Amino acid sequence: MILTPKAICFDAYGTLFDVHSVGQLAESLFPGKGKALSQLWRDKQVEYTRLRSMSGRYKPFWEITVDALNYCGAALGLDLGAAQRDALMAQYARLSAFPENLQALQRLQASGLPLAIHTNGNPEMIAQAVESAGMSGMFSTVLSADRVRRYKVDASVYQLAPDFFNCQASELLFVSSNGWDVCGATWFGFKTFWVNRSGAPAECLDVLPSYIGSSLDDVVSLVCK
Amino acid sequence: MILTPKAICFDAYGTLFDVHSVGQLAESLFPGKGKALSQLWRDKQVEYTRLRSMSGRYKPFWEITVDALNYCGAALGLDLGAAQRDALMAQYARLSAFPENLQALQRLQASGLPLAIHTNGNPEMIAQAVESAGMSGMFSTVLSADRVRRYKVDASVYQLAPDFFNCQASELLFVSSNGWDVCGATWFGFKTFWVNRSGAPAECLDVLPSYIGSSLDDVVSLVCK
Repeated sequence: MILTPKAICFDAYGTLFDVHSVGQLAESLFPGKGKALSQLWRDKQVEYTRLRSMSGRYKPFWEITVDALNYCGAALGLDLGAAQRDALMAQYARLSAFPENLQALQRLQASGLPLAIHTNGNPEMIAQAVESAGMSGMFSTVLSADRVRRYKVDASVYQLAPDFFNCQASELLFVSSNGWDVCGATWFGFKTFWVNRSGAPAECLDVLPSYIGSSLDDVVSLVCK
Repeated sequence: MILTPKAICFDAYGTLFDVHSVGQLAESLFPGKGKALSQLWRDKQVEYTRLRSMSGRYKPFWEITVDALNYCGAALGLDLGAAQRDALMAQYARLSAFPENLQALQRLQASGLPLAIHTNGNPEMIAQAVESAGMSGMFSTVLSADRVRRYKVDASVYQLAPDFFNCQASELLFVSSNGWDVCGATWFGFKTFWVNRSGAPAECLDVLPSYIGSSLDDVVSLVCK
């Protein structure tokens, strides 16, 4: 065992849950524009969390995701009616796990480490995603930004984990595939693991993750014998 | 006179200063990638202001702009050496004004209204940009995020204006071409004017600017006889 954290906290979207199927549906609904839609949708979703968090204008993540989709419809000139919107949001509600995730999580769970989801998502949508992805019973808790009505990278969101596990942030391992999330978490004081699935460049924010890998299997290698 | 604010506060980049020339240089340095570079550069620059502001990790806007450019070089696979970086940053330092801006500002100034720059930019780079764009002497003050070491849309940045002009936010007119900036300013309590030069869709943030136009001429029409 290389690292023995008191618990492991996982970001949800893009880290545990694969949003790729949303892009596929987007392409089938709007041929030739699926990639642009899924990219802009994600960017706007994240942007709106930050703007609302900075301004004290909290709104649950599910509703922000709808708002971001509506913006994309207008920005990309899509014929985005209620049927298409409902279909895309329904797909967002039932994402699959990345192929290696279930087995990796089982191995981590078997090692005795408490596992948590630590997410911008509101509890209702996370509960549905966990069930959809076949991850029921794998996590000790869901630490949702909804509890503090701020979003990552606000410190109050990251603080949920040391509060819950009653320890220092540096005793916890925080895992995310989002470079910016890993930077925020490192600034906050966690040990961090960047699951850089796509080989993206590191953010230029004067901070580096504690560890970098390409899938959850690399997290298993880090913490399991 | 339709509206009589106590002063008018202008966002700088994209509102007063035209960043188009940066895109042109980017295209000449990296043929076929100039548009992608200038778009991603701007997006990253703004993203880094928010991440740093939310995390209490302030760094001046000029340095963030360099960081964002370095990220773009890696993300887009550009051969971005010191020469190219220096050339792009030098261009950023000497932007021109949008064509209608100088005359519009002169008319607003002649009407007796105090004009201010209200910006994420640090004072040194704004001073250089004002001179470059031929706007010396037009503004009563530069209200820079640098003073509070946070970035828009943090309320402490917007608060600089009512503090300086010793009045309520609702007595001031805030002008920006950035939809998100106008939303943040409206949330804060300013009267707001969105200079929507590109005909972009409104942000889906449950808030609308007080006024919308397509150039600074429309601001003149709003406040001058």
